[in-house]
Amino acid sequence: MNTPIRIMGIDPGLRRTGWAVIETQGNSLRFVDAGSVSSDAKADLASRLCQLHEGLEAVLHQHRPEEAAVEATFVNKDASATLKLGQARGIAMLVPARAGLRVAEYAPNAVKKAVIGVGHGDKKQIHLMVKVLMPKAHFDTHDAADAIAIAICHAHHRQSVTSRLAMEALK
Amino acid sequence: MNTPIRIMGIDPGLRRTGWAVIETQGNSLRFVDAGSVSSDAKADLASRLCQLHEGLEAVLHQHRPEEAAVEATFVNKDASATLKLGQARGIAMLVPARAGLRVAEYAPNAVKKAVIGVGHGDKKQIHLMVKVLMPKAHFDTHDAADAIAIAICHAHHRQSVTSRLAMEALK
Repeated sequence: MNTPIRIMGIDPGLRRTGWAVIETQGNSLRFVDAGSVSSDAKADLASRLCQLHEGLEAVLHQHRPEEAAVEATFVNKDASATLKLGQARGIAMLVPARAGLRVAEYAPNAVKKAVIGVGHGDKKQIHLMVKVLMPKAHFDTHDAADAIAIAICHAHHRQSVTSRLAMEALK
Repeated sequence: MNTPIRIMGIDPGLRRTGWAVIETQGNSLRFVDAGSVSSDAKADLASRLCQLHEGLEAVLHQHRPEEAAVEATFVNKDASATLKLGQARGIAMLVPARAGLRVAEYAPNAVKKAVIGVGHGDKKQIHLMVKVLMPKAHFDTHDAADAIAIAICHAHHRQSVTSRLAMEALK
């Protein structure tokens, strides 16, 4: 029998980074917890990055996930916004990686496809489907809901990778 | 008499991040060390960010700077490149900030003005002026030379801020 695997999904943002922890075991998914880490908009950039770092480290210590996944977005309104996102994303990837976790990246349409079945759709549809797939899920912000979707996406993909490797081993 | 202050300048980049440590005391500047931290282009993004993190932490432990400065660039060829730069920049600001250092940011033209006297000029002019201002400076890469320029810029600006505060205190 498969042992459950804990996955942490992260939706990075400088103002607010969403996070979610779920468990996958065979074909079943279980919600563990979700929330968001905010940074103080009045603080300087370096302090804000420290706040995100501390918040994500606290989640990691509390929930002990074994794998992590982050959305690979870069479409944004301007270069300054993309740079801000990049800085937050650097921290979002660093924290689990330094703890020894493998950090997977998924394009936004892969996340949508995993959750709503197709590669397009709006935030509302994603949040509705998160509630359908995980009735016990609760989230305080859109970012936390997005983080659940990213974790679900990784649960689907890691499984197909694992079964493909198992199939190859049987050849 | 003023006590010397150690400044770390950082020029962030995902492939290679330049760093420099200088000392400022009154009007004099002294070169301490400079170099660059590279990340393995074949590794995944999270591992590369860890490599930059480790490299910068090692510099911090070795040279114990008291203040840090990073260039505030975001002009870049495309959103994907800006995101990559942002990720490296997030790490470059996080490392000194977590060690309790104040991290200043300077626009590229402020760095140029501090080093070559005007707000425009090419890399070559910056590197020549770094050698004029700090004859003992040595650097293995362009990024390390840029990091020296950023540290010099901070030495100039911190002084003017300090003297302004001193003037205000005297009023």
